[in-house]
Amino acid sequence: MYAITVREPGGPEVMEWSEVPDPVAGPGEVLIDVVASAVNRADLLQRQGHYPPPPGASEIIGLECAGRIAALGEGVTGWSMGDEVCALLAGGGYAEKVAVPAVQVLPVPDGVDLVTGGGLPEVACTVWSNVVAAGRLTAGETFLIQGGSSGIGTHAIQIAKALGARVVATASPQRAERCRELGADIVIDYHDDVPAELKKATDGHGADVILDNMGAKGLAANVASLAADGRLLVIGMQGGTKAELDLNTLLRKRAGITAMSLRGRPVAGPHGKGAVVAGVRAQVWPMIADGRVRPVVHATVPMERAGDAHRQLEAGGVVGKLLLSTPTR
Amino acid sequence: MYAITVREPGGPEVMEWSEVPDPVAGPGEVLIDVVASAVNRADLLQRQGHYPPPPGASEIIGLECAGRIAALGEGVTGWSMGDEVCALLAGGGYAEKVAVPAVQVLPVPDGVDLVTGGGLPEVACTVWSNVVAAGRLTAGETFLIQGGSSGIGTHAIQIAKALGARVVATASPQRAERCRELGADIVIDYHDDVPAELKKATDGHGADVILDNMGAKGLAANVASLAADGRLLVIGMQGGTKAELDLNTLLRKRAGITAMSLRGRPVAGPHGKGAVVAGVRAQVWPMIADGRVRPVVHATVPMERAGDAHRQLEAGGVVGKLLLSTPTR
Repeated sequence: MYAITVREPGGPEVMEWSEVPDPVAGPGEVLIDVVASAVNRADLLQRQGHYPPPPGASEIIGLECAGRIAALGEGVTGWSMGDEVCALLAGGGYAEKVAVPAVQVLPVPDGVDLVTGGGLPEVACTVWSNVVAAGRLTAGETFLIQGGSSGIGTHAIQIAKALGARVVATASPQRAERCRELGADIVIDYHDDVPAELKKATDGHGADVILDNMGAKGLAANVASLAADGRLLVIGMQGGTKAELDLNTLLRKRAGITAMSLRGRPVAGPHGKGAVVAGVRAQVWPMIADGRVRPVVHATVPMERAGDAHRQLEAGGVVGKLLLSTPTR
Repeated sequence: MYAITVREPGGPEVMEWSEVPDPVAGPGEVLIDVVASAVNRADLLQRQGHYPPPPGASEIIGLECAGRIAALGEGVTGWSMGDEVCALLAGGGYAEKVAVPAVQVLPVPDGVDLVTGGGLPEVACTVWSNVVAAGRLTAGETFLIQGGSSGIGTHAIQIAKALGARVVATASPQRAERCRELGADIVIDYHDDVPAELKKATDGHGADVILDNMGAKGLAANVASLAADGRLLVIGMQGGTKAELDLNTLLRKRAGITAMSLRGRPVAGPHGKGAVVAGVRAQVWPMIADGRVRPVVHATVPMERAGDAHRQLEAGGVVGKLLLSTPTR
């Protein structure tokens, strides 16, 4: 098969569309003929050599895909050859074929085309595992999404809205309107004093749940933005990893901070990828099927030109997901 | 009535047994004739002027008590005059009488004498709200209690054991045996490298749930001690309030930090004191009634000599609770 390989750690130009050995579906796995993958911010780090795949995972970049089942490994039930599916991957998505544990596979939701399905697993699993499973966001609570126009952001706004929360998004002024169209009740320019603007817009309440991808750089402002009994969920470190934490502020608010990634999870177990995928299928897929949550696609780029897609994401201004489509067969 | 008053912020000598106006049971409150209160570490801070009572709370020190119901405020049901009860207080425990919202009152558990009941509400509500409600400790998980011989520690060891957890306690060598008697499976000398000893004793697993009262000073070691999907619960700041947090370590473990106090909670609502007290009555009181969890009392000191009790707690070496008994009437 063909896949994107990385010549050496570096810029987008180090990625090449090259012939590599076909993957094989091991016990409990399925083989997927990939129709589309999507770009995640972690892919940029992996290309640069900063985010190696977990032990046993494919060296090929790509954390999600959609396609058709092409082989069933030993012991796999519930899936048939040719099924149109999408999947959460530990790696290997930027390729014509990928092998993945069957518990990480989802049907493409009703009403979503196969290519678009390639950009759903990461956002759906990330937002569900953080905002729903760990953050326990409930109707009537206030939810703050940092970076409302990102792939995660555009999905999180809709999920939180569907759960009955009041949704606050940060965004640049150019993208504020897109956030509102997706359901954000309040949009704050991320250049502003976000905790102060949030307090003003919520009569001093703050945010019950915050989803953040900045890490260290945003920690103090996020803790300041939390409401009493609030939960801060950190899913990225774009602003560094180490910061001073004022435990007293946390204690006065009875607040919590959780940081989680999907990729390092085991496949099985109560916190495993299989459990996350099952939760998404039960709770998120119905929201997509009935139109409350729509996939947001910025553009679809041919997979051979994955470097162009990386350049686009690095340049900023992308709203929603960048998809990578494999050559038509 | 008589109560302990604080002449001016300072050492134990500033506390005096003086005559003050009687409290009155407002709507939804009961008046308790206090038989016993107990010393909490927060009391020492309040005496020094560092921990003022929340708005509307009594200025008198004392976060818990036991006694007999002496008056019922408007609208109170479920309690009768003379009932032997204990209560979680926002203040006012070091006194002959105290008024408290009826939802913060508990029956004295079966098999516990009234004086001993005065030292149960704080430990039971703190451990339940942290370890059970927020930390969701489950059977088979590993629980680390920092300071196993303290009032909180002696209760937490037993609760975690009753929940089916593997219990690890830190303690000084002199008090290790007491922790084992209460159910600790592993005791680590707190002078040692606790994360390293914990890893050694748990085959590299670490702790699924940690209950900590040191705050900043213990943060890095606690984060290092957490297992994957672990939860750190901070209930005190004896080691300072601000420390560097490595979010990347947290993220790799999918771990969380929550800091909470009981005193600042509202009375009502899903996170309120009433909800905590109801949870304790439903889940902890049966464990005490059937003997799985026993109150641990270090000594009972006449309330007039509360200063002596404060000196004892400050000197160290106290195992379990220091009770304060009111003069016999």
